[in-house]
Amino acid sequence: MATAGKVIKCKAAVAWEAGKPLSMEEVEVAPPQAMEVRVKILYTALCHTDVYFWEAKGQTPVFPRILGHEAGGIVESVGEGVTELVPGDHVLPVFTGECKECAHCRSEESNLCDLLRINVDRGVMIGDGQSRFTIDGKPIFHFVGTSTFSEYTVIHVGCLAKIDPEAPLDKVCLLSCGISTGLGATLNVAKPKKGMTVAIFGLGAVGLAAMEGARMSGASRIIGVDLNPAKHEQAKKFGCTDFVNPKDHTKPVQEVIVEMTDGGVDRAVECTGNADAMISAFECVHDGWGVAVLVGVAHKEAVFKTHPMNFLNERTLRGTFFGNYKPRTGLPGVVDMYMRKELELDKFITHSVPFSQINTAFDLMLKGEGLRCVIRMEE
Amino acid sequence: MATAGKVIKCKAAVAWEAGKPLSMEEVEVAPPQAMEVRVKILYTALCHTDVYFWEAKGQTPVFPRILGHEAGGIVESVGEGVTELVPGDHVLPVFTGECKECAHCRSEESNLCDLLRINVDRGVMIGDGQSRFTIDGKPIFHFVGTSTFSEYTVIHVGCLAKIDPEAPLDKVCLLSCGISTGLGATLNVAKPKKGMTVAIFGLGAVGLAAMEGARMSGASRIIGVDLNPAKHEQAKKFGCTDFVNPKDHTKPVQEVIVEMTDGGVDRAVECTGNADAMISAFECVHDGWGVAVLVGVAHKEAVFKTHPMNFLNERTLRGTFFGNYKPRTGLPGVVDMYMRKELELDKFITHSVPFSQINTAFDLMLKGEGLRCVIRMEE
Repeated sequence: MATAGKVIKCKAAVAWEAGKPLSMEEVEVAPPQAMEVRVKILYTALCHTDVYFWEAKGQTPVFPRILGHEAGGIVESVGEGVTELVPGDHVLPVFTGECKECAHCRSEESNLCDLLRINVDRGVMIGDGQSRFTIDGKPIFHFVGTSTFSEYTVIHVGCLAKIDPEAPLDKVCLLSCGISTGLGATLNVAKPKKGMTVAIFGLGAVGLAAMEGARMSGASRIIGVDLNPAKHEQAKKFGCTDFVNPKDHTKPVQEVIVEMTDGGVDRAVECTGNADAMISAFECVHDGWGVAVLVGVAHKEAVFKTHPMNFLNERTLRGTFFGNYKPRTGLPGVVDMYMRKELELDKFITHSVPFSQINTAFDLMLKGEGLRCVIRMEE
Repeated sequence: MATAGKVIKCKAAVAWEAGKPLSMEEVEVAPPQAMEVRVKILYTALCHTDVYFWEAKGQTPVFPRILGHEAGGIVESVGEGVTELVPGDHVLPVFTGECKECAHCRSEESNLCDLLRINVDRGVMIGDGQSRFTIDGKPIFHFVGTSTFSEYTVIHVGCLAKIDPEAPLDKVCLLSCGISTGLGATLNVAKPKKGMTVAIFGLGAVGLAAMEGARMSGASRIIGVDLNPAKHEQAKKFGCTDFVNPKDHTKPVQEVIVEMTDGGVDRAVECTGNADAMISAFECVHDGWGVAVLVGVAHKEAVFKTHPMNFLNERTLRGTFFGNYKPRTGLPGVVDMYMRKELELDKFITHSVPFSQINTAFDLMLKGEGLRCVIRMEE
């Protein structure tokens, strides 16, 4: 590679300050250091988390910063010590990592890697505490170790999943965050058996991915719950058989669902982050075997409350992070599910824009239009 | 059998009113009706639940009543339709049943039988709504379908576990309630793997049975938590390696345990019924894979509260009833664990009295002395 070991100059969308439109800039991207990989991003998508940290409300602001974490690309060059990836490999960057050595990585159950667990406040590489991005020599901060709103980016090898090179990156880029989060919540944590009933709370992209998992599992009845009635029609593509809008009922939605299902659903997945929805999701599962899974991230002051008897009647409540997928070990298999046509991804992509129009993707999300907008780095 | 089909007159300890010593009476025990079995009780033990419903504080009083539910006996005769049991079979009566036909019985996970689920207010047989006990023709009420404080009792076939006739009934009678509840909470629900760390909250008989399950599972470290320092010494026989008294610390006990274990225990089992202990048990398990199990029955107004992030960091909270054992299907195997010397039961028996001194067993429990007092029906 002619570029290996050299600084690459390329385009990046920089967030100079909170809430202001991203600005297309020429940035310098330093070569990857030990255990790092420089990746050419081909497609990236916009996720709520990008918008959340761009708005930076009630947070420590980290600016100027290159956002972006849901993406697909190709390895350009690798740093010292990287043996699992070579230039040309197709990869999905992930906002959380897998060192393969810590207690969490060695556990069969956890994906909360001690070394590379998500850190939203850190704007630098963990190896040397420096940024690999500069403009005229001044550092631009990274975002969750990925910063995919750049034609080239530098990522720790533990945050890259090597995937089937035949997989279309403009589709499977969605698997690097939201879709895997919802899908894994159902497939890896709720684990519905064929014929079971499943309720999904919150029908955004993550909730619909959880619903896709229920459809793939052969659920007999899939109840979508959302405050927005417009979500019903779209959810039908994901297997939704019943739609419940809590606003249409005077009694708590958990009671409505318990009545609809003669005692409760077998599984519930909560994808809103609202504490009341979490309580409803838990209390609507059947006694004896019901499992509720929490996916949505709640406010700092939020409290989950319920009567202990709801547990003693043999209900289970679990939470999950990134669908319990270990990024390097687990994601390639999710790509394979798409390639085998078991998992349907195309229906999540409602918009597509060239990189130069990245602010349009922000506008769409702020207006609540569509599910995922894929951004094409090559116009 | 000379007695089959006839009324049997025998001794029973009758609770005539709340909180008053039981009175030894001659009662008439009617023959078993359809799906019922008359059992000669050989040994019964006293459990907190008997005392709770004898005190009858804040409950609908059901008197006069024959209490008792933790016992072992021999089938005397069977009613119409009973095909699984014959006179002479050794059985353990259970306060909750297994009809083998409802959705719960057909589920692999649940033991909350729709037909025979525990009902503490019912004092009669479910078949005809009548009592099988009378004194001078006046009915005496049953208790949780078992009423084992009588030389003979009538029980629904779904509430009887047929066990190995070689098993000593003076020991395995304990498996009909408390010990199986704690043991199953660990073995069937928390499921610690060999080498894991386990915390047990509340070191009464149920908690120590949960601890016995941890010992049998090969836990590397077993932390007992109790407000009474005297519990430490006894717990050592059950595998307790560390003892924590929340009163000895200024910080919440969950923080103490997280520090002791470098991030939390792998499993926790809560056997007190106190909501704060439930919260502590949940919050002391390790992120990524920790599982907490609730066993203790909380007050009606109790609330379980925690920050949702404690779930999102991949912790699981489950509740259990009777250790998730299905009475007929599961209990014979627990008896077999005792016969193979995997499960140690004798250490739970701290006292033994003849039937005529049953009130001594109540006194011991009210004073908090000992774990289990076995009552011998034959002097």
